[in-house]
Amino acid sequence: MDNDYIRVGYQGDIGSFSEEAMNKYFNHIESRSYKNFEDVFNAIDRGEIEYAILPIENSSTGSIRTVYDLLNKYDFYIVGQECIKIEQHLIGVAGSTIYDIEEIYSHSQGFEQSSGFLKKYNHIKLIPYLNTAISAKYVSSLQDIKKAAIASKRAAEVYGLEVIKEKINDIADNYTKFIIIGKNIEISKKCNQVSILFSIEHKVGSLYDMLKNFEEHNINMIKIESRPDKSTPWEYLFYVDFEGNLEEINIKKALGLVKEKSRYYKLLGCY
Amino acid sequence: MDNDYIRVGYQGDIGSFSEEAMNKYFNHIESRSYKNFEDVFNAIDRGEIEYAILPIENSSTGSIRTVYDLLNKYDFYIVGQECIKIEQHLIGVAGSTIYDIEEIYSHSQGFEQSSGFLKKYNHIKLIPYLNTAISAKYVSSLQDIKKAAIASKRAAEVYGLEVIKEKINDIADNYTKFIIIGKNIEISKKCNQVSILFSIEHKVGSLYDMLKNFEEHNINMIKIESRPDKSTPWEYLFYVDFEGNLEEINIKKALGLVKEKSRYYKLLGCY
Repeated sequence: MDNDYIRVGYQGDIGSFSEEAMNKYFNHIESRSYKNFEDVFNAIDRGEIEYAILPIENSSTGSIRTVYDLLNKYDFYIVGQECIKIEQHLIGVAGSTIYDIEEIYSHSQGFEQSSGFLKKYNHIKLIPYLNTAISAKYVSSLQDIKKAAIASKRAAEVYGLEVIKEKINDIADNYTKFIIIGKNIEISKKCNQVSILFSIEHKVGSLYDMLKNFEEHNINMIKIESRPDKSTPWEYLFYVDFEGNLEEINIKKALGLVKEKSRYYKLLGCY
Repeated sequence: MDNDYIRVGYQGDIGSFSEEAMNKYFNHIESRSYKNFEDVFNAIDRGEIEYAILPIENSSTGSIRTVYDLLNKYDFYIVGQECIKIEQHLIGVAGSTIYDIEEIYSHSQGFEQSSGFLKKYNHIKLIPYLNTAISAKYVSSLQDIKKAAIASKRAAEVYGLEVIKEKINDIADNYTKFIIIGKNIEISKKCNQVSILFSIEHKVGSLYDMLKNFEEHNINMIKIESRPDKSTPWEYLFYVDFEGNLEEINIKKALGLVKEKSRYYKLLGCY
């Protein structure tokens, strides 16, 4: 993307995986970090940033559900995506070894992705933090050989920490997909993926009837994710990603039918 | 269920929602509590308990994904289900008020379900704990008016705490479904729900083709949940719950087809 210092927001801090994905996707930006995912959405709303980058799914641990829920709560659009390889490392102050560590700080995803490694050291206390980079920053501020963080190699460099044990994630092929969101929909000829969300009547075959619209228009569904419809217990919102561009006739036809049959429908973007 | 002191395990401690669901479902049992969900699965494996009760889904926040992943990892069966209403309360030591509180301990679900309330007090530090009851027990041990827990009313009673603010969950109609698992499949005429999991070829229409088997046999799907297939990035395992009994002919036929078309298939239970 060619941009002249547009403002982009992310959750976390310098050295977070979101920042890494942002730097891979964008050039020439002014970046701003926020504490929580919802703070990032609010920043777009206030006009403080033009775009935001948010993790949407990890290949080992699954969807980032808070981000899915916020996509429904706020009326922004997905305008792009980025994917990066995630490597988690145990990092601490100079001289610290695995035998010194009594407490590890990280995002819950950092713990979840490294659960096999952590099981071998189950005397160590795990303290969940808002973000892997923020936990590295905190460990750096403590300067205590008994405290470590699980974060990226870049976080270790940024906060002057050393790698105690590298690549501790259970699954070597560990990736996170990020979405880029903005206030307006942006459709170009290069877009090849569409995201929508809908809710349906609670009756036999209604999800099947919805998916039939994609099948009959020869549309390749990439992902389906269900989230609770907070207005009614045990009813769901379905988030569907599929291949295609909103300008294609088969996509237009299928979405017309999906919209007609949904109780609630929202276009999340074409990118 | 009529049982003569069978041993049942749950995650948490006395006063947890799991314990409440267990006492609703079972009579005359010897109960054992465990620190983590996987400890509960291991306890069945070792023969330390005959059954376990585990939360599987909350109506506001969604599926308990760790339990879904463990259902795949271990070869146990779902033999029953229970549902209870969840009310979260802010509880603390006698004399403590909301204005005193500097730190709140709870399970991450306790925070997530009370996020609207917590937003009004965003100077308060939230400390995630393994379980709501364990956090109440911890707050009780501290005897500090600055520390509170989010947990059930019963947890307050059990650990000698007082309710500072009652019913702080965002959504009043807040329920959690629990499953009961055991080493063997148990099918009776009373069973009216079946759970399976499968993975499919990564190609156009394969999920639709799977769901068609249910539709064509007039089977009512209750829920579909996808989880990452840890062996291959961006491939999924689908967990499907539907109405019926394994002895019914249409169910037998549909499952025969699903099994045939799956790359991986597992029956999780009929209950």
